[in-house]
Amino acid sequence: MLTRIDHIGIACFDLDATADLYRRVHGFEVAHEEVNEEQGVREAMLRVNGTDDGHATYLQLLEPVREDSAVAKFLARHGEGVHHVAFGTGDVAGASAEIGGAGVRVLDAAPRPGSMGSSIAFLHPKDCGGVLTELVQAAGPEEDERG
Amino acid sequence: MLTRIDHIGIACFDLDATADLYRRVHGFEVAHEEVNEEQGVREAMLRVNGTDDGHATYLQLLEPVREDSAVAKFLARHGEGVHHVAFGTGDVAGASAEIGGAGVRVLDAAPRPGSMGSSIAFLHPKDCGGVLTELVQAAGPEEDERG
Repeated sequence: MLTRIDHIGIACFDLDATADLYRRVHGFEVAHEEVNEEQGVREAMLRVNGTDDGHATYLQLLEPVREDSAVAKFLARHGEGVHHVAFGTGDVAGASAEIGGAGVRVLDAAPRPGSMGSSIAFLHPKDCGGVLTELVQAAGPEEDERG
Repeated sequence: MLTRIDHIGIACFDLDATADLYRRVHGFEVAHEEVNEEQGVREAMLRVNGTDDGHATYLQLLEPVREDSAVAKFLARHGEGVHHVAFGTGDVAGASAEIGGAGVRVLDAAPRPGSMGSSIAFLHPKDCGGVLTELVQAAGPEEDERG
């Protein structure tokens, strides 16, 4: 049902400086960048490796674009660091229903838009061992993701 | 140089209960379990997916076995959640030297033992955008990792 780590979401104050750090130190390049107005963030996807389900694992850098966004609040409380962990699935609606049936609170009643045309749903961190958890259904196979 | 997400380290109070949660909700099984006396933790590796460098990505659950361990201190301060992010490399000593040369503080002067026979080194979170970062050189190709 969950077939890969899709990405690790990392909250930062300055997206460009943090992307530069990961390029310079880790050797990862920005594969995609967008603004998600609904979530109030600017985000960059840095591809780390391909996965055996035909997709890939990314780091997702998140910079708030308004002060009332969840990521702005996280930064004010915790400072920079890991914000969430996202698992890839071929069927985000089905996985959400199954996981909800196992007693975990699903925070999105219906999947909503994520990075690179994906559909996503978040799970309550208190039901996931303190980890804010995201489910991601990619827009298509990897070659289409960065089109 | 860094070719995969090797694992995400997650601090928990009760390893068995958290492993059970990940088995029941996410569908991930414990592939390996050990106690790292030096780090003062009991750890379980849950395999999530294979990676295109011939290895795999895991969740690493960490339960402290003594109160003065780094993970016990993390739990007292932050509660349960993501403790660190580990990247795989074919040469942990070389990667540490290169990353140290880029101005990032390497916390281990020489690589030390990690999960499943690996060699590891940690990087200072303040030099890595708030993320406690680990470098991992696996003991061998994936088929040998869980022998």
